[in-house]
Amino acid sequence: MAGSRYAYVRNFELPDPLLPSTFFVIRIDGKGFHGFSKLHNFDKPNDKNALALMNEAAKRVVGGRELNGECVLAFGESDEYSFVFKRTCKLHGRRSSKLVTLVVSIFSAAYVALWPKYFPNSPLTLEELPVFDGRVVQYTSEEEVRDYLRWRQVDTHINNLYNTTFWALVLQGGRTTTQADKDLQGTVSSEKQELLFSRFGINYNTVDDMYKKGSIVIWEVETSPPPRQETTEEPAEDEATEEANLSGVDAPRPSSSIPAGVKLRQRKKPAKPKRRLVVVHEDLINDAWWESGRGAGLLSG
Amino acid sequence: MAGSRYAYVRNFELPDPLLPSTFFVIRIDGKGFHGFSKLHNFDKPNDKNALALMNEAAKRVVGGRELNGECVLAFGESDEYSFVFKRTCKLHGRRSSKLVTLVVSIFSAAYVALWPKYFPNSPLTLEELPVFDGRVVQYTSEEEVRDYLRWRQVDTHINNLYNTTFWALVLQGGRTTTQADKDLQGTVSSEKQELLFSRFGINYNTVDDMYKKGSIVIWEVETSPPPRQETTEEPAEDEATEEANLSGVDAPRPSSSIPAGVKLRQRKKPAKPKRRLVVVHEDLINDAWWESGRGAGLLSG
Amino acid sequence: MAGSRYAYVRNFELPDPLLPSTFFVIRIDGKGFHGFSKLHNFDKPNDKNALALMNEAAKRVVGGRELNGECVLAFGESDEYSFVFKRTCKLHGRRSSKLVTLVVSIFSAAYVALWPKYFPNSPLTLEELPVFDGRVVQYTSEEEVRDYLRWRQVDTHINNLYNTTFWALVLQGGRTTTQADKDLQGTVSSEKQELLFSRFGINYNTVDDMYKKGSIVIWEVETSPPPRQETTEEPAEDEATEEANLSGVDAPRPSSSIPAGVKLRQRKKPAKPKRRLVVVHEDLINDAWWESGRGAGLLSG
Amino acid sequence: MAGSRYAYVRNFELPDPLLPSTFFVIRIDGKGFHGFSKLHNFDKPNDKNALALMNEAAKRVVGGRELNGECVLAFGESDEYSFVFKRTCKLHGRRSSKLVTLVVSIFSAAYVALWPKYFPNSPLTLEELPVFDGRVVQYTSEEEVRDYLRWRQVDTHINNLYNTTFWALVLQGGRTTTQADKDLQGTVSSEKQELLFSRFGINYNTVDDMYKKGSIVIWEVETSPPPRQETTEEPAEDEATEEANLSGVDAPRPSSSIPAGVKLRQRKKPAKPKRRLVVVHEDLINDAWWESGRGAGLLSG
Repeated sequence: MAGSRYAYVRNFELPDPLLPSTFFVIRIDGKGFHGFSKLHNFDKPNDKNALALMNEAAKRVVGGRELNGECVLAFGESDEYSFVFKRTCKLHGRRSSKLVTLVVSIFSAAYVALWPKYFPNSPLTLEELPVFDGRVVQYTSEEEVRDYLRWRQVDTHINNLYNTTFWALVLQGGRTTTQADKDLQGTVSSEKQELLFSRFGINYNTVDDMYKKGSIVIWEVETSPPPRQETTEEPAEDEATEEANLSGVDAPRPSSSIPAGVKLRQRKKPAKPKRRLVVVHEDLINDAWWESGRGAGLLSG
Repeated sequence: MAGSRYAYVRNFELPDPLLPSTFFVIRIDGKGFHGFSKLHNFDKPNDKNALALMNEAAKRVVGGRELNGECVLAFGESDEYSFVFKRTCKLHGRRSSKLVTLVVSIFSAAYVALWPKYFPNSPLTLEELPVFDGRVVQYTSEEEVRDYLRWRQVDTHINNLYNTTFWALVLQGGRTTTQADKDLQGTVSSEKQELLFSRFGINYNTVDDMYKKGSIVIWEVETSPPPRQETTEEPAEDEATEEANLSGVDAPRPSSSIPAGVKLRQRKKPAKPKRRLVVVHEDLINDAWWESGRGAGLLSG
Repeated sequence: MAGSRYAYVRNFELPDPLLPSTFFVIRIDGKGFHGFSKLHNFDKPNDKNALALMNEAAKRVVGGRELNGECVLAFGESDEYSFVFKRTCKLHGRRSSKLVTLVVSIFSAAYVALWPKYFPNSPLTLEELPVFDGRVVQYTSEEEVRDYLRWRQVDTHINNLYNTTFWALVLQGGRTTTQADKDLQGTVSSEKQELLFSRFGINYNTVDDMYKKGSIVIWEVETSPPPRQETTEEPAEDEATEEANLSGVDAPRPSSSIPAGVKLRQRKKPAKPKRRLVVVHEDLINDAWWESGRGAGLLSG
Repeated sequence: MAGSRYAYVRNFELPDPLLPSTFFVIRIDGKGFHGFSKLHNFDKPNDKNALALMNEAAKRVVGGRELNGECVLAFGESDEYSFVFKRTCKLHGRRSSKLVTLVVSIFSAAYVALWPKYFPNSPLTLEELPVFDGRVVQYTSEEEVRDYLRWRQVDTHINNLYNTTFWALVLQGGRTTTQADKDLQGTVSSEKQELLFSRFGINYNTVDDMYKKGSIVIWEVETSPPPRQETTEEPAEDEATEEANLSGVDAPRPSSSIPAGVKLRQRKKPAKPKRRLVVVHEDLINDAWWESGRGAGLLSG
């Protein structure tokens, strides 16, 4: 065949399989989101809509046909999201590039598609698109995966406490960002919390769990028809769950923010296992969660 | 610090650098585009708008700030695109995952953002998003990279001739797809061309070069202010070029297809090297192109 | 410095770490040992001296200073040996090339150094050196490592039964090798054992365990001064152990086979943990061994 | 089959191919040779016999059947040796582990086998074996490979000048090693040469090229029957060559140092291409060598 003399170039496509029975995490991370969040005037220290958008894009990844239901949990904070797979996952022959690009592509596409729903008055531009990079990390035991998630959640805690205090100083305390940064240098957690309370009357314990603990996308067995709700509009609460409303993009909404390019398409038939995705904001650090109905057995089998 | 006891999990993030001085190609490929193209009624054998959308997304990748102008050429056909980088490229420490996810993310985001411009009457759904996987392939010499591109262009030729004949048989000849497939089994190129001409009056030589040769995104030095044109609306011709109109998404258009979520943002200042991206449909197989103004020196330095 | 302009070539030395907490096995394999064994007239189906030499070289690898006592078990059959390391092993930064070449180098050097002790009348030649290749394989759980060793031991069983029957047919039964091979085609284990017994009076159960089960090099805690013994001269028995006689190369021997180039050097001080290496030939397939004093806890911690 | 239930463990053996058309270098390095050289009283700053042994072991690697004549050059200094392969080399499917372990194994085995010839009065011990680790490094162009060799030769120069001066200070100048080290701190090449000449009457230019430039093992086309020579006994000179006397281990020698375990075996038939290995000590840094009969075309094709 005419093409055969060039076909040798295919030999340069080297295999890149993961080990056969590792757990693996695919973590994606927003690129240049500092500027992106400024451009679209994200609220400080946390923008509820931006986080809800991240969560819905993550649900699209976890719940989509492409991953065949094999992602068992996703954890998100700020502009990053981690997708956790069990050791038995055989998806795409466990080819590293295939898996990581698939997740990044779905997330990016979903983020853009969902954008107008969450930011109807701040349209995207082609030049400043939301972009995410990704990587795969393999783990060999359940404990390591739990520690991975604890590591991300501790990070969420630390960042959120810092940011909450920092922006209180700037927005309410009249400090410049440089001053605020200096104010906080060397302070420990308890000092930041004290400062928040004494100067701004903010009890850090009452801060929204989504901000303090990040967001967990997880499967929940359906026991009855899921109620129709729009939880992303209300403050998320610990233990509160949001329906995996994949086809809800065009649900009736008060404003004219419905994107021209994204429309509902009915799911033809429900997935076999009667389960749905929920977003919760719970403590992954203590063992309790991992021994609870949600966490127990999550990574095994 | 509280998080330090879990920080050991970072050690599982292994390095994945490319070799320091290989050329590399990042090839992305549509996932499940057979179904996707049916869903949106893509024209057969080729959908001009779908290809123009691929080309514009590719221009966004090549021309975007994220790649720092270091992608020297991209080649696309059907639902795949290959992005070529020189051996001197140092982008992101040449980390494989970083590079491939970045390209896939930009492309996916751009494709969704641009969709309403090209398919104003067939909105995307969250469930059936356009998704692309990607891989990086390293090469060690210019000749291998040229052969890589020849390999893809030969593939374009073969696929297009087959598809053109196949769909002529089906759409004009009244054959079923099964019959058409059988009709073409074992036929060589000359036979397909003869069949096209004798039965359907189609001179294959006059078929649009974009279909026969694929699309090349390449930098062109600007000698004068680029004329304002909307080449994506007209049939592309060999040697014809399309302006890298990154900010042209919201250019005045006859229909009301302007996407709600994607808006122009003016480029503040032109890139230092006075060059722009063009899309051409030229022969990469013969040496002539590689010795021409466009190809000569493209991969060196 | 004069050399600095060339130092860039070091950047081509890419990292190749194992994952941080996998178990790993380094398996070495004789290259071209079919010819090598013919050249030195190894006994068929098993050469006791050749296997004893393999075992002593393996003990040198496991017990040598280079591995810091971190190899917990080695298993050998024929011209291959597998060295097992726990998930906590941090040796040489877990660099793959470093670890595998180190083991191969020690084994090869020891094999040559010990050769004259076992084959005093068949000196090595430079052209036909004993050569071994090696590979590292990572596992993620104790069960996988146990199954790896079971896999090797089942292989030992199968090969030894075949070889024992094959060579009985050839050496005692007067069949050519081609005939013997054909005789055995399609036979199952019980048929081979029946054939051995009915035609040659060989009860396969009484065959030396070293041949049937391979050899296990393992650490044993010393409870009293080890008795001086030369077990490699006597038929090895199940449960019998051989002292890790690293410095016994020049022990008094009946013949003049002491190599000129290899001499005893007294160990200056005993290793801190009062333990020594033994070679045993035991069943690794059933769970019993893994629950016994030897196997229990071997891979954990 | 009984073994099949465990055969899944083979899936953990991941592929590790080199890129299809890179040049590659396998560099081996003595492990703990500082102690090893002390144990056997190697001459300082250079031990001619130790280097000759390295060279002969390297010739065995390059000239041996295992590499199929595909190693085109080897460069050695001190206790390291680099083996260079062309981009067209297809040996062992270019599997990284296979290639590097093979070279390390042959070198280690040859080193031990040849030891008694070079150190008849200082026998090896099993505990203190000569051990080498190894790595593979890929390069993408001839220039990079040349620079790799220049890098090693510059290193040879620097180390040898330092060592020559250091040991002159210690052995002839009566300085302690600590003093000598301090004396040389911060000195440049010209100062070391001046010191050598003014204080010890040593003209560095007359130092043996083997010490200054290292050793190159390379193929030479035979134009006439090679003369029988024992060049390893005489001081090697620049341009002087040593025959690739693979079977010369048992050549008549004055002492009774012939190893019991290593004996001559006649090469049955000469290799097809009438060429032989030589060891030379030439300048690889300047372009001249690479344009000479030896270097020109060495890496191409």
